Amino acid sequence: MGKGVHIQELPGLGTRYDVDLRSSDGERVSIVVSRDGKRHLYVFTSRGDEPTAVIELTEEQARKIGAVLAGTFFTD
Amino acid sequence: MGKGVHIQELPGLGTRYDVDLRSSDGERVSIVVSRDGKRHLYVFTSRGDEPTAVIELTEEQARKIGAVLAGTFFTD
Repeated sequence: MGKGVHIQELPGLGTRYDVDLRSSDGERVSIVVSRDGKRHLYVFTSRGDEPTAVIELTEEQARKIGAVLAGTFFTD
Repeated sequence: MGKGVHIQELPGLGTRYDVDLRSSDGERVSIVVSRDGKRHLYVFTSRGDEPTAVIELTEEQARKIGAVLAGTFFTD
């Protein structure tokens, strides 16, 4: 499962996960999971260091979005 | 778990999930899960109908990102 995901420890901060999508276009997603549970989602739609969009997520929001993406989201 | 997620069937296409983040800023994430498994992720960082970033994900890519966000990503 780890294929295509680059993981980097950020000492004192948390963990950064880089997921390559279409590397020919530079499309990628980075997620920083902080020690306090917060997530920052960085979306890159082209090459370069500047993300196209950045959003901060609480742990609960990240879980919801994660469940939808993973196909495990169900309503009560 | 369904709280904060608005689900809309798109007949013949798939299902759309809207997750509100900070509604005061208009920040939100929409995910369209197509019948063929593809996902489109729309990130809105401000009010308005134009997404800040749109990425297309295969089912496998979406599962990886989903697992990282949900906190269930583990390497082999």
